[in-house]
Amino acid sequence: MQKGLSVSDSDGSTFAPLVVLELAPNTKEEAVEWLLKRIRDKQQDGGAELLVEKLSPEDQSTEKDNPNVYMVGASMRRLLFGAEDVGLFKEFNDGTMRSFTCANRHNFKEFQGDGDSFLSMAECQYIIKHELDTLRAKGEAHVPGYPKMKLYPGKSVIRRIQSKGILVQIFPLHENEELKRLSFSWYKQFKLSFQPLDDIRHYFGEGLALYFAFLEYFTFALIPMAIIGIPYYLFDWEDYDKYTVFAGFNLVWCTVILELWKRLSASLAYRWGTLSRKKAFEEPRPGFHGILGFNPVTGREEPLYPNFKRQLRIYLVSVPFVLLCLYLSLYVMMIYFEMEGWVLMIHDEEPTFWTGVLLFIPSVIYAVVIEIMNLIYRYAAEYLTNWENHRLESTFQNHLVLKVLVFNFFNCFASLFYIAFVMQDMGLLRQSLATLLITSQILNQIMEAFLPYWLQRRRNKKAHRRVIKTLADKELPLSDQVKLEADMSTYLGTFDDYLELFLLFGYVSLFSCVYPLAAVLVVLNNVTEMYSDALKMCKVFKRPFSEPAADVGVWQLAFEAMSVIAVVTNCALIGMSPQVKSYFPESDTQLIMWVVAGEHLLLAVKFILTFVIPDIPKNIQIKLSRLEFESLEALKKRVSTASLKNTFQQDNNQQTKDKSARELLTGPRIHLNL
Amino acid sequence: MQKGLSVSDSDGSTFAPLVVLELAPNTKEEAVEWLLKRIRDKQQDGGAELLVEKLSPEDQSTEKDNPNVYMVGASMRRLLFGAEDVGLFKEFNDGTMRSFTCANRHNFKEFQGDGDSFLSMAECQYIIKHELDTLRAKGEAHVPGYPKMKLYPGKSVIRRIQSKGILVQIFPLHENEELKRLSFSWYKQFKLSFQPLDDIRHYFGEGLALYFAFLEYFTFALIPMAIIGIPYYLFDWEDYDKYTVFAGFNLVWCTVILELWKRLSASLAYRWGTLSRKKAFEEPRPGFHGILGFNPVTGREEPLYPNFKRQLRIYLVSVPFVLLCLYLSLYVMMIYFEMEGWVLMIHDEEPTFWTGVLLFIPSVIYAVVIEIMNLIYRYAAEYLTNWENHRLESTFQNHLVLKVLVFNFFNCFASLFYIAFVMQDMGLLRQSLATLLITSQILNQIMEAFLPYWLQRRRNKKAHRRVIKTLADKELPLSDQVKLEADMSTYLGTFDDYLELFLLFGYVSLFSCVYPLAAVLVVLNNVTEMYSDALKMCKVFKRPFSEPAADVGVWQLAFEAMSVIAVVTNCALIGMSPQVKSYFPESDTQLIMWVVAGEHLLLAVKFILTFVIPDIPKNIQIKLSRLEFESLEALKKRVSTASLKNTFQQDNNQQTKDKSARELLTGPRIHLNL
Repeated sequence: MQKGLSVSDSDGSTFAPLVVLELAPNTKEEAVEWLLKRIRDKQQDGGAELLVEKLSPEDQSTEKDNPNVYMVGASMRRLLFGAEDVGLFKEFNDGTMRSFTCANRHNFKEFQGDGDSFLSMAECQYIIKHELDTLRAKGEAHVPGYPKMKLYPGKSVIRRIQSKGILVQIFPLHENEELKRLSFSWYKQFKLSFQPLDDIRHYFGEGLALYFAFLEYFTFALIPMAIIGIPYYLFDWEDYDKYTVFAGFNLVWCTVILELWKRLSASLAYRWGTLSRKKAFEEPRPGFHGILGFNPVTGREEPLYPNFKRQLRIYLVSVPFVLLCLYLSLYVMMIYFEMEGWVLMIHDEEPTFWTGVLLFIPSVIYAVVIEIMNLIYRYAAEYLTNWENHRLESTFQNHLVLKVLVFNFFNCFASLFYIAFVMQDMGLLRQSLATLLITSQILNQIMEAFLPYWLQRRRNKKAHRRVIKTLADKELPLSDQVKLEADMSTYLGTFDDYLELFLLFGYVSLFSCVYPLAAVLVVLNNVTEMYSDALKMCKVFKRPFSEPAADVGVWQLAFEAMSVIAVVTNCALIGMSPQVKSYFPESDTQLIMWVVAGEHLLLAVKFILTFVIPDIPKNIQIKLSRLEFESLEALKKRVSTASLKNTFQQDNNQQTKDKSARELLTGPRIHLNL
Repeated sequence: MQKGLSVSDSDGSTFAPLVVLELAPNTKEEAVEWLLKRIRDKQQDGGAELLVEKLSPEDQSTEKDNPNVYMVGASMRRLLFGAEDVGLFKEFNDGTMRSFTCANRHNFKEFQGDGDSFLSMAECQYIIKHELDTLRAKGEAHVPGYPKMKLYPGKSVIRRIQSKGILVQIFPLHENEELKRLSFSWYKQFKLSFQPLDDIRHYFGEGLALYFAFLEYFTFALIPMAIIGIPYYLFDWEDYDKYTVFAGFNLVWCTVILELWKRLSASLAYRWGTLSRKKAFEEPRPGFHGILGFNPVTGREEPLYPNFKRQLRIYLVSVPFVLLCLYLSLYVMMIYFEMEGWVLMIHDEEPTFWTGVLLFIPSVIYAVVIEIMNLIYRYAAEYLTNWENHRLESTFQNHLVLKVLVFNFFNCFASLFYIAFVMQDMGLLRQSLATLLITSQILNQIMEAFLPYWLQRRRNKKAHRRVIKTLADKELPLSDQVKLEADMSTYLGTFDDYLELFLLFGYVSLFSCVYPLAAVLVVLNNVTEMYSDALKMCKVFKRPFSEPAADVGVWQLAFEAMSVIAVVTNCALIGMSPQVKSYFPESDTQLIMWVVAGEHLLLAVKFILTFVIPDIPKNIQIKLSRLEFESLEALKKRVSTASLKNTFQQDNNQQTKDKSARELLTGPRIHLNL
């Protein structure tokens, strides 16, 4: 763990700071005191039993600095119990992954002595985040000093003060040593190698590591396509017709790679211990509001919001809004085609070099407009989804992803579909695809990594000119490091990164048969993307809390939907190719019938394949079954020895004692069918 | 429980007999003694701890009777522990369904006193079956007296003697009182009412009750279609063209009813306590063979059979065989069409009444041939699937169902598809559909219920003429009842019943738009089916062991696949209707394009609906979540109180004690992702 950095808590003992809590500078003293007390209180008194101390800057040179910055840490013992609390999976002595329990701690592989290096810093920070999040109000009616900030028993304290603005931000600290090592093996050395996924997971958590794994997998999966694409591009440049084979290849490719990814992702998740990890009961998201009532599941007091109201908001406002946006997007597309025609006319009248350049202008403008529309829509979608007032963060995310996906898909691909199937102009399709692909890539890379990086550097230089100088040579003092990191931008999650991959996957799987270079371009883009994403994670953003993840979640579904659309599109493109048309010279009807029949067959095969290929590789399946079997056997043994002899004769003594344990044992059986 | 019937065990105490074990008459004495000892042995000595006694017939009039018939029962205490063992869910005091535990028994709703009427007889019999099945060989190298019947530690004794023919049959006894009551409320009174599903479940178990629930649901779901169908049939008899609306209705209908069934089935399964019940680890099926090795999951010695060999058998033998059969079926279909044409020619040359009758002959012959082919194929499929040597009964069943389904579907529907889409003759389609439907229904009812019933009655009359006379008046003596039941046919499971419903569903959903009476016929058929199935369960067959089931299993998938095919077929039929064709007078291409586009849209909507409609109703979802939440909370409390204080200070004492409990607690977390 972080050496050299430590603060001392109120008892005078030092602890390693893990998480930073920044409160608003003008927070009332009594609220701060109350909060710190609640965080420090013992668990049996309803506290979080964590260590927390005010950050004492070594020099008060910059008076604008917020004085209300607190460092949170915990004793190793507390962290280990926290690990049990959050259901962390660790490697057991026999090589399987098991849920960590303190009682059983010496049987875990890397547990030595007091377990000092057993938990990674990211895990510790995740545990602290979890403990803070589940710190609940007891008898308080409101936050002390703020009568308007209502509390009720069971309400998460942190969520309330965060939604009311007292808590400005909460973020985990970077580890400079680790980060240097990670960034060196990740992007500092230009060599052909896989990404250090285990190290990424170790530092940033499973969610982000899975994103990078997917990015890498997707890039490798594209390589065969890129290799086939290059000769296609070189030798058939003017021959738009020979794309049938390529379309067929596309069609198989996009099905197979997604199936294989599921297996790879299951292997990774097993190795990282998240595959069989159970999700804890989800709290309402911070922004959720409603009339106070009792949750039917937990029995706790919390805001309730009737489902039908939410449904009304979704179907009467959100859906029409999305449809309106889609219509708008179509309208913009039509303007683009008018511009295109107009430019073409000018070029045809009097072709010069400049009119040649002019030919590309509408596409570039359209690509830029699409990006801008996507950006604006994104904000609208977030606002709307927030307004729909979903209870859980996960359903909020799903609704947001759905809204954004549909619009982005429409916005990016509508013009291509129009050109391909209404105008049936393969030359134009090729040109548009190339322009869209290249423009959006360049825009993305600039917007996403280099611009924030540049801004970050500028900000750093201004504010911490003195500090930066020493950065390269020696350790920063803690207070400076905290200040530096507090000013960094916040990483908002993998949403945008996945969305970008999703669109790229669309370009490649839908239309790459008419523009075989697409795969090559996407591979190049992905390689730079890997570097720029790595850079932005290490240098631009605050360290994010690690997010346990067993798979890429809703994105798997999105990519699969895209691959179904790809089958349909590629079949249609094949049917439209002059090559295939020449087999049915006399009758269009027959051609269409054959194409439709083939398409249905392929879709059927695709669905059968999805069923036949197991999602989890055999060896991991066996390991999981073994764990399950062992727990069943242990249960049976316990029942047949302990109970059969004692319980029945003596009645009520044993009964109450065993009751809670039995309930625990039988409870988790529920999960199977949830 | 069964009053009046009892046998006394070796200690002289009486017990209620539940299950009958019939051994081969020539079984060696030492093998019988060994088996009885193993069944009676205490659990800690590796026995089943059940009560077992030889059936002593009251008079030895019939000397041909098998003397080796044994009655198995158990003490109430043993049964309750068995209930815990098999993970039985019962209603708790708070109205939720929970896994029964002995320690907690007084908190279950219907538990009174010693729990005498707590378990239904079907549950007791299921428990005894489970305990017998898990009776394992200890040190024995072979069955005593039979050196060739090898045993190894952990091998299920019952399965081995069953597969070697020592155990002739094992079946649970009927309860005459209960059966009379059930059959009265089920089929003896002709009234309009729902089936007594709870009573059926109580007597026959969840698997069968779900079948009858599905049969009833399916019948009710057909009623709107039948109601719409009658006027269609009456007023549009000669107007084949107006079926567009009906096809559209079909299309929505088959999607919606399946979604609703899922919810209904979840409600039933929750009420019956099987929804959240965890499946125990599955044993190899009795016929499975291979080289002795160690199971990677259990570590137990058991036969292993390499997966690639099985795959080779499947892909190199089974698949080609199925394809060959499909080809044969096509060939037969072509012969049918030739016959059809030939008959039509005769009729056209010189139409008389007899040639008019002759017109129906080929269809009837074809329907009969189809039934015969289905029957023969069924045996071949069973043989092949057996030869594929699947380890588990469930995978065996899945492969068998798949094989039989594909062939039956092809056999029954190929001719209809041919008529509809190749010949495009709606008149003939209507006629064939009617003939197929009516013939196969009549054949089925005869083969399935009335023939066995008649045979059963005849057999009964012959063998027990004396007994039968008294049957109506008073209780049979136990030995006579056992003999009567031992001679009854064995019910082979719900496979054939579901298959029949599947084909009926196909007739209705695929083609009923051209023959609106189909739904009416199917409703009529289902009503008689309900009665004949009830009759056959109560009177014709031995009582089957109750099978816990949470849903209709692989059949849900099969019906859903059929509904997808129905969407495609109905769209195609709509596209072919003269009504729709008249909208596109000049271009066939455009018509097809529109139909294909519409079909794709409908399929997309169908899949989205499948996602959007939750499979489990909200109120049950809440109950399940509450149970899960409670167990999580209990776990957390246990961790934070018991462990936080003690475990860490004192090291190894507490540790070993808590270890097994913790493992149990953490083990079930696995189930989520299996």
